Amino acid sequence: MASPIRVTVWNEGIHEKQSEKVRGIYPEGIHGAIAAHLKTQPGIKVVATATLDDPEQGLAEEVLAKTDVLIWWGHIGHDQVRDAIVDRVQKCVLEGMGLIVLHSAHYSKIFKRLMGTSGSLRWREARERERLWVVLPGHPIADGLPPYFELRETEMFGEVFDIPQPDELVFISWFEGGDVFRSGCCWHRGKGKVFFFGPGHQTHPIYHDANVLKVLTNGVRWAARREGSPMQFGCTQCKEPLSPIRPKENA
Amino acid sequence: MASPIRVTVWNEGIHEKQSEKVRGIYPEGIHGAIAAHLKTQPGIKVVATATLDDPEQGLAEEVLAKTDVLIWWGHIGHDQVRDAIVDRVQKCVLEGMGLIVLHSAHYSKIFKRLMGTSGSLRWREARERERLWVVLPGHPIADGLPPYFELRETEMFGEVFDIPQPDELVFISWFEGGDVFRSGCCWHRGKGKVFFFGPGHQTHPIYHDANVLKVLTNGVRWAARREGSPMQFGCTQCKEPLSPIRPKENA
Amino acid sequence: MASPIRVTVWNEGIHEKQSEKVRGIYPEGIHGAIAAHLKTQPGIKVVATATLDDPEQGLAEEVLAKTDVLIWWGHIGHDQVRDAIVDRVQKCVLEGMGLIVLHSAHYSKIFKRLMGTSGSLRWREARERERLWVVLPGHPIADGLPPYFELRETEMFGEVFDIPQPDELVFISWFEGGDVFRSGCCWHRGKGKVFFFGPGHQTHPIYHDANVLKVLTNGVRWAARREGSPMQFGCTQCKEPLSPIRPKENA
Amino acid sequence: MASPIRVTVWNEGIHEKQSEKVRGIYPEGIHGAIAAHLKTQPGIKVVATATLDDPEQGLAEEVLAKTDVLIWWGHIGHDQVRDAIVDRVQKCVLEGMGLIVLHSAHYSKIFKRLMGTSGSLRWREARERERLWVVLPGHPIADGLPPYFELRETEMFGEVFDIPQPDELVFISWFEGGDVFRSGCCWHRGKGKVFFFGPGHQTHPIYHDANVLKVLTNGVRWAARREGSPMQFGCTQCKEPLSPIRPKENA
Repeated sequence: MASPIRVTVWNEGIHEKQSEKVRGIYPEGIHGAIAAHLKTQPGIKVVATATLDDPEQGLAEEVLAKTDVLIWWGHIGHDQVRDAIVDRVQKCVLEGMGLIVLHSAHYSKIFKRLMGTSGSLRWREARERERLWVVLPGHPIADGLPPYFELRETEMFGEVFDIPQPDELVFISWFEGGDVFRSGCCWHRGKGKVFFFGPGHQTHPIYHDANVLKVLTNGVRWAARREGSPMQFGCTQCKEPLSPIRPKENA
Repeated sequence: MASPIRVTVWNEGIHEKQSEKVRGIYPEGIHGAIAAHLKTQPGIKVVATATLDDPEQGLAEEVLAKTDVLIWWGHIGHDQVRDAIVDRVQKCVLEGMGLIVLHSAHYSKIFKRLMGTSGSLRWREARERERLWVVLPGHPIADGLPPYFELRETEMFGEVFDIPQPDELVFISWFEGGDVFRSGCCWHRGKGKVFFFGPGHQTHPIYHDANVLKVLTNGVRWAARREGSPMQFGCTQCKEPLSPIRPKENA
Repeated sequence: MASPIRVTVWNEGIHEKQSEKVRGIYPEGIHGAIAAHLKTQPGIKVVATATLDDPEQGLAEEVLAKTDVLIWWGHIGHDQVRDAIVDRVQKCVLEGMGLIVLHSAHYSKIFKRLMGTSGSLRWREARERERLWVVLPGHPIADGLPPYFELRETEMFGEVFDIPQPDELVFISWFEGGDVFRSGCCWHRGKGKVFFFGPGHQTHPIYHDANVLKVLTNGVRWAARREGSPMQFGCTQCKEPLSPIRPKENA
Repeated sequence: MASPIRVTVWNEGIHEKQSEKVRGIYPEGIHGAIAAHLKTQPGIKVVATATLDDPEQGLAEEVLAKTDVLIWWGHIGHDQVRDAIVDRVQKCVLEGMGLIVLHSAHYSKIFKRLMGTSGSLRWREARERERLWVVLPGHPIADGLPPYFELRETEMFGEVFDIPQPDELVFISWFEGGDVFRSGCCWHRGKGKVFFFGPGHQTHPIYHDANVLKVLTNGVRWAARREGSPMQFGCTQCKEPLSPIRPKENA
């Protein structure tokens, strides 16, 4: 409990290079903004920020080995993420690393891999109001939040969202234009936990919003790697039965 | 996070008065044994032990008001618990108090109340071996446990167990005599959490077992009251819509 | 499969007596309107409609014994339903009868009994638009529905809705005034199934809407009593272990 | 409802070619045995059996297009299934085709793809007894089954089983040698349903057991493609908001 949660913030890092508008909102990149916030949170330590441009796309074995929670933002570079990297991240999650999947990363290879579904949804860019309602008010990710909070202008993400039913559904979003969305979803995968959080479009200053940042802090704490119980597979440890098996007459 | 989790251990307290054998195993009562263990655990504070003999059956408003997690053991005194006390405990759980329901308390009024089912199961007293398998190895309640652990002699509790599907199923028990049982089950109820744990018969020294005690410690940490998000109900806070409603022509 | 699903439609039946407006919408009562629709559906047979005024409040043993799905509408008469009747209906559900809980019956004794929570929610009467989104499109209750459907004027029911997490969440509602609501929720309870459906206020002609009626038809088919597998409880059938238990040396 | 459920039974078909013992148990192949049973069941029509040796590995577009439920048995040929075929089957499931995954197909590409986990488990071949307990007795897949049934000799599959928590857990297996296993698991994926069923080793006559065959029949009926509600994705259908969005002043 005493040692801090080690977080790596990954962002494909493309919009910031291409768009002055995005740079204006996130001068240090989306990853930089999220990392800057998390660094101020007690019990959390940002061990790395990383992008597609980094060696091994920022997700080398040694980076993941020291990561308790990986935060993932991606949009137009999903296809550039190499399958071997996706394999590696999936393996780390199944072994206990937390994963926080943000906004358009609903379409990332790693999210689709861990969900088994298409991750598809409906969307609209119309600068509309989003209101996130807490529907599981005792969940750790809701700690300190009001019953709902608003984002004045967002991209709409709407149902139907092609995901497995969440193990825990924390937020449902209302959109001004008439849509709803399961915007805060939790799943177990192997020993790891996955949290999808809907808001976060690159041209809206979502990651400067106090409630959104609180969700990210809470999400990191909830998804953090735990000791848990070892996963044993295969036949080596069970060749010898734990209890006696009676011989059976041949039929 | 800094303030300790305040635990009240409730036990009907009847077997200990009636049976020398039970007193031999639990000289301070089942509640006493559990409390003695929890007192040694960092971050946990036992604020009370209580039994049916105490004023207001040990569960006065002021006791519950300072309780973050209530542990409940009962067996032959379920019917003696007054309905008003059950109402009170249920209300506390819905408002965020954790509840850990042990062994034959599957038939307690409070468990049946919170589940909505009969809590019925199959059982057998035959001094048989129970082996608890961890099936959700990244869950906080599994922290530090081996892939399975054994209890040499237990009462069998077996399926079908009439409960709602758990939000999280942590343990499944194997019994020597041929039965299985969902022996570690988690549910959200309102802002509170409920954890049912199967082992714990009064004539077996279950609450002296190191793994069982670890489960109780982990269970307390998992079920502990959190800040969460406020629950608002009724019409007072929503008379004025958050977004404008257009007048409709009369049909 | 061949024999029709036997449905009883229960309605407290108070508004229709007190309000000309309600009688105008539902001349035969809400129960009458629902029954009239269901009677036209293949494979479904309405065996009874019933209200508080009927003998045993309309829910005599013999009525329930021939009921595969019970539909429940209540609002201002919840407290008049006798506890013994609630006990009886709960027992029938646990033994396999389906239950469809409509609108303000979120506060009925039977729904609170089966859920274990308060059933509380937020509400507003402002003649606003409701849009129900299908979020589990392969679920039987969604059969034949469009991706969303609208009700032009409804009472708002909003989150937070104090219910256990549904086993299956089929609909989420969007409200013009800014709220969302889990308006189509499924649970297993014992051998029975429970479906809660949000729309249905007495002063809006909700049960004349084609999509709502389709939901009710689908709900009846989904919740219908099935053969299933017998539930066995207690010790009679398990005194003799199924597999041998080895004698244990005394410790 | 009137038209029969169209089933394709797929089996890699390798053991039967290599082992006289397996041929002895399944002269027409595992797929043949399952198909022979299903053909006798009312409302079910076997449209194809298929193996790795068939054109397009037996899973051509036109085969899948006429399949409501696909049954999958595989073991030593998982790697031979081409990724393009896995993509195709996954797409069909998300669009509504049911999938029944048998025994060692817990390690098939398609199961791992749809689950997002490794599908790993513990196993032992020791000719031991398996007892399957029904834990969700009102579920369609439990129709007509006793509270438990036995298989005299099976391969042990044991926990921990690396799967997402099932939406519905129907069976838990007890093994003579001391293990337990979630042997009947249901999930929604997109518009489709997935049922994993544990028993079925090639050297035990599992698919000649009356209870196992009943489970397969029930599984087919449960997983069958339904009309459901259309899934709409992307931006085409939501460019125009359903409700008006107010212009926002620039900040």
